[in-house]
Amino acid sequence: MSTEDFIVTPCHDEGNIDYDKLTKRFGTERISSELLDRIKKNTGEDHFMLRRGVFFSHREMNRILEDYEKGKKFFLYTGRGPSGHTHIGHLVPWVFAKWLQEKFDVNMYFQLTDDEKFYAKSNLTLEDTKKFAYENALDFIALGFKPENTKIIINTRNIQTLYPIAAQVAKKVNFSNTKGVFGFTNETNIGMIFYTSLQSAPCFIEDKPVLIPLGVDQDPHFRITRDVAPKIGKQKPALIHNIMIPGLEGPGGKMSASSENGTIYTTDAPDVVKKKINKYAFSGGQPDIEQHRKIGGNPDVDVSYQYLRIFFEPDDNKLKSIHDDYKSGKMLTGELKGILIEKINEFLEVHQEKREKAKDQIDQFLYENK
Amino acid sequence: MSTEDFIVTPCHDEGNIDYDKLTKRFGTERISSELLDRIKKNTGEDHFMLRRGVFFSHREMNRILEDYEKGKKFFLYTGRGPSGHTHIGHLVPWVFAKWLQEKFDVNMYFQLTDDEKFYAKSNLTLEDTKKFAYENALDFIALGFKPENTKIIINTRNIQTLYPIAAQVAKKVNFSNTKGVFGFTNETNIGMIFYTSLQSAPCFIEDKPVLIPLGVDQDPHFRITRDVAPKIGKQKPALIHNIMIPGLEGPGGKMSASSENGTIYTTDAPDVVKKKINKYAFSGGQPDIEQHRKIGGNPDVDVSYQYLRIFFEPDDNKLKSIHDDYKSGKMLTGELKGILIEKINEFLEVHQEKREKAKDQIDQFLYENK
Repeated sequence: MSTEDFIVTPCHDEGNIDYDKLTKRFGTERISSELLDRIKKNTGEDHFMLRRGVFFSHREMNRILEDYEKGKKFFLYTGRGPSGHTHIGHLVPWVFAKWLQEKFDVNMYFQLTDDEKFYAKSNLTLEDTKKFAYENALDFIALGFKPENTKIIINTRNIQTLYPIAAQVAKKVNFSNTKGVFGFTNETNIGMIFYTSLQSAPCFIEDKPVLIPLGVDQDPHFRITRDVAPKIGKQKPALIHNIMIPGLEGPGGKMSASSENGTIYTTDAPDVVKKKINKYAFSGGQPDIEQHRKIGGNPDVDVSYQYLRIFFEPDDNKLKSIHDDYKSGKMLTGELKGILIEKINEFLEVHQEKREKAKDQIDQFLYENK
Repeated sequence: MSTEDFIVTPCHDEGNIDYDKLTKRFGTERISSELLDRIKKNTGEDHFMLRRGVFFSHREMNRILEDYEKGKKFFLYTGRGPSGHTHIGHLVPWVFAKWLQEKFDVNMYFQLTDDEKFYAKSNLTLEDTKKFAYENALDFIALGFKPENTKIIINTRNIQTLYPIAAQVAKKVNFSNTKGVFGFTNETNIGMIFYTSLQSAPCFIEDKPVLIPLGVDQDPHFRITRDVAPKIGKQKPALIHNIMIPGLEGPGGKMSASSENGTIYTTDAPDVVKKKINKYAFSGGQPDIEQHRKIGGNPDVDVSYQYLRIFFEPDDNKLKSIHDDYKSGKMLTGELKGILIEKINEFLEVHQEKREKAKDQIDQFLYENK
């Protein structure tokens, strides 16, 4: 899955992405309070990423729940375009997918699109993207998935399974469709043009409804899949979208694996995390302490606060107290950054341990071609 | 390999294809008498298809021979688009390829492009094209290839091997290139757009020079491959082209598997062959016997004579006597057709027996993904 190439041109509103405009433009639905209640009714629990609007939009999540309530299970599918090492922003949909998997007790497929990143990046070889696919897979496994109900698909490794499915999709998609959705031109390489059909393929790997938790920038691929599905006698994939995770340098974009300094990698050492946050994390604070104490900080644009909200502080009460203290000027930017640094390093200490263990587990997770 | 979709728009000259104009337009080279001599020097033998200009054009055949003379072996690659049953016209490049294989003692790959025919034909499923691939493979094996040095590639079956190679090609080919070569439009499906990279893949399956005997209408695919090869650090494939085999209804075109009556299938019974030739084979004779005896027939446009020339009468003396007798009016069209019918049925009797045996041999020929 590309997390860089098909970036939405988000409508900016005072430096923030206007997700109302975005959903309208994309034709997706905002997650309503009724839908939140329905998810809670089925899972018995409220996930903070839902509650806080980190997952904010969907396509046909209601149908998935309706089927589920009638006893018809779905499966989950998400993925990653392995163009570099995993950063903490990538973990957002994976962690949420894991929660969905546990609560609904369903199968999960994780696709690593080594071919796509090879097509998209002139400087990367297939060996490079395969290497990154392996690295990214370790981070995915480290989140605690079980090999019994979770399979990792690597495109070049599983092409024997994917290609016949992708061919069904490809026959129903023409160049115009890809131009319209991805902005392809006559200069786009034919691997890239074909590729969306391979991202569609896992949607049809089981004969069940599929739900895809993913960054909203990936929605265009599945718009194509959803158009094609009925033409090949299949159900449309349902989607649930997370917001774009801001890079350290500020809101209005998303964390990119290609900007070294704007990115916390899952393999970063504690002192590296500390340095990156202190040096690069965009601050919503005032130019000096006096002004900050007087006027207060702006948590809405402060990247450290946003990281706590999106990922690192699931406790609403703790988050609210940080929010209020920062906004009032009681908490300084340095203090806020200190909280985030501690949270990230706590998380990464455990994650990196599990990531090491994942090296011995990866074979159990790899999808085997039938 | 498509034998229908990328038909050259041949320049017609009094009902015949003008192969001089064609080679000029395609930018290929006519096979010169020097090249014929060089081939003969290496093989110790003259093949009637070369002598008679059935194979008439090439790209870099000289380089292949130069390397061979220095002790560097090449490998052979040809194929077929399995959109229907095999007809006798398909056998021309296969029979010639077999001769090359024996004389040069080299490996041979035969690609069956079930995916391509699925993309190209709205009425065919992948199951249909796979079934035809199997049927076509039997005809190929029946010609006497040996499993030790001959492997059959079926695209969906061998995609695990083909895709990583195809990806290298696909990255270097853009939509403009395919528009220019195949006349693709915005409405062309993305499977078809990508497909040429899969037809390129077997060119690079061994780290040796490759020679491809093929119908001249397939040249466009390998024009793309030849452009890409140096960009991915590989040698350009060399080609040797046969003319387009006319359908029963007449010269100026090629035998098509889609026209039932214009086609002799390898599975046709003797009475079917007799009926088809007598009823449909375009005649170079005169309207009535009197005129024929007086003016004589025209072997150049007579399909029965051409089939003898192209495939069924390797003996030059016998062919010349048929030619002269027909041209002088001594031989009537019915007699000429009788000769061809006998020749085809003799051939098919043996072929169909071997084709039955091929059903037990096919597994040994199928390429196994590494």
